[in-house]
Amino acid sequence: MSTPAEYKHIAEVQTRWSDNDIYGHVNNVTYYSYFDSVMNRYLIDSGALDIQNGTVVGFVVESNCKFLSPLAYPDQVTAGLRVGKLGNSSVRYELALWDQHGKLCAKGFMVHVFVDRQNNRPTPMPAPLRAALQNLMLDSSNA
Amino acid sequence: MSTPAEYKHIAEVQTRWSDNDIYGHVNNVTYYSYFDSVMNRYLIDSGALDIQNGTVVGFVVESNCKFLSPLAYPDQVTAGLRVGKLGNSSVRYELALWDQHGKLCAKGFMVHVFVDRQNNRPTPMPAPLRAALQNLMLDSSNA
Amino acid sequence: MSTPAEYKHIAEVQTRWSDNDIYGHVNNVTYYSYFDSVMNRYLIDSGALDIQNGTVVGFVVESNCKFLSPLAYPDQVTAGLRVGKLGNSSVRYELALWDQHGKLCAKGFMVHVFVDRQNNRPTPMPAPLRAALQNLMLDSSNA
Amino acid sequence: MSTPAEYKHIAEVQTRWSDNDIYGHVNNVTYYSYFDSVMNRYLIDSGALDIQNGTVVGFVVESNCKFLSPLAYPDQVTAGLRVGKLGNSSVRYELALWDQHGKLCAKGFMVHVFVDRQNNRPTPMPAPLRAALQNLMLDSSNA
Repeated sequence: MSTPAEYKHIAEVQTRWSDNDIYGHVNNVTYYSYFDSVMNRYLIDSGALDIQNGTVVGFVVESNCKFLSPLAYPDQVTAGLRVGKLGNSSVRYELALWDQHGKLCAKGFMVHVFVDRQNNRPTPMPAPLRAALQNLMLDSSNA
Repeated sequence: MSTPAEYKHIAEVQTRWSDNDIYGHVNNVTYYSYFDSVMNRYLIDSGALDIQNGTVVGFVVESNCKFLSPLAYPDQVTAGLRVGKLGNSSVRYELALWDQHGKLCAKGFMVHVFVDRQNNRPTPMPAPLRAALQNLMLDSSNA
Repeated sequence: MSTPAEYKHIAEVQTRWSDNDIYGHVNNVTYYSYFDSVMNRYLIDSGALDIQNGTVVGFVVESNCKFLSPLAYPDQVTAGLRVGKLGNSSVRYELALWDQHGKLCAKGFMVHVFVDRQNNRPTPMPAPLRAALQNLMLDSSNA
Repeated sequence: MSTPAEYKHIAEVQTRWSDNDIYGHVNNVTYYSYFDSVMNRYLIDSGALDIQNGTVVGFVVESNCKFLSPLAYPDQVTAGLRVGKLGNSSVRYELALWDQHGKLCAKGFMVHVFVDRQNNRPTPMPAPLRAALQNLMLDSSNA
């Protein structure tokens, strides 16, 4: 089973009242919102992505999640993030979520293709973005 | 490419202002909310699922989406739903989304395991639920 | 009690699975999302607001809702919209929501100040926007 | 202008990618989600509200927000919470939000009526709930 040690970046995720659905658990949809926020936040904090004015924009082309155990507001959630595969203009993020007892609750991935903000065409990543993503690889020698 | 004719149930999905993210497109997360709502609505309208008081509850154990072309509020979206695989207590839904010009924008799947509301253990589907799901199979003879 | 006849624009609102909270009703927060979507949709469909490239942007400076009776997914909701007050750069929208049985469930208002997209300063509304808002006044003679 | 010192309970709020709308700011709707989560979290952490099994449920009957300055993901937000008025079965919460530079961005209120979970009728608050709310009053002598 996955542990935080297998991920390069760890972040805390705050749950919200509206995350719970009628069954009293975090709605499956919301897990992707946790993924999205952790991943973008890492890139923004690294100075690698300027979501307001940057020349490149990340488009999600695929995402996936396996739901292993329910989360529920007001749980405090821990997220793990790493890069599984890094191409010229695309990257595959791998993510995991644990509840406050350290129980693995979900594993997933997202694939970003970076495009030029003007013409929406795939574009090689700028160097600082690439460097930030390389730092998320378990074995950064194979990037 | 997928067309609505390849799906057994078709539903209209209304986009919302808050669906658009900072890039002006529907946030990738929200596509799963469309999936979730279309699928549950079909079951509720079929009389196959009582989300308030039913004895079984559907837990999503995996979901996936491939994002092919962006959607944006105020687009009117068309969703297609079918069942790809039907087990004793689990079902795999396959979904697609088209924009108002008929362009395929996303394809995805969700896997439900039905559990007993009291003990959260997987349980065989009640007959009306099973029948409603069988109606979503392209070739209902293999269910 | 308010009836749809007291509103100038009527729109249907589709509820979503994730709108329901743990108590089985639409979360109070989500009512504002219905308001937001109906109001912006009216302006977009009227050709009065270009949310992607327009020179003016509407900032909400105040909103309010009174919750009279619960809504719940998969209810079909009817929304009513009118303009209560129209200034040079600001407008007060008044909204109401009814469930599918015609029961009044919520009444609220939102105040928009239109600002210049470049400098964020309040700006007089362009004529087509003003005309679209005037059409929402019960007594359009006092605008 | 309001400062955190004027509120009895202070909480940090994490913003999410999906909070930003097309204009690059937190959607006005989402402020209410911050309010909702901070207020319920306080009650849950105080042992005053059991959202899964408690005998009473809080229904929001009115809410309001004045938006003074925009927030945007990935801002860290600080929320202030106090009780303005405490009745037998109802309570008026007053809330404020500041950005990470200490700038006041929003002020609002929410009114909860506590009802019996079985019959949805207003009911006097249980003593622990009342005590937790009294602790949120600026001048607890007038409760």
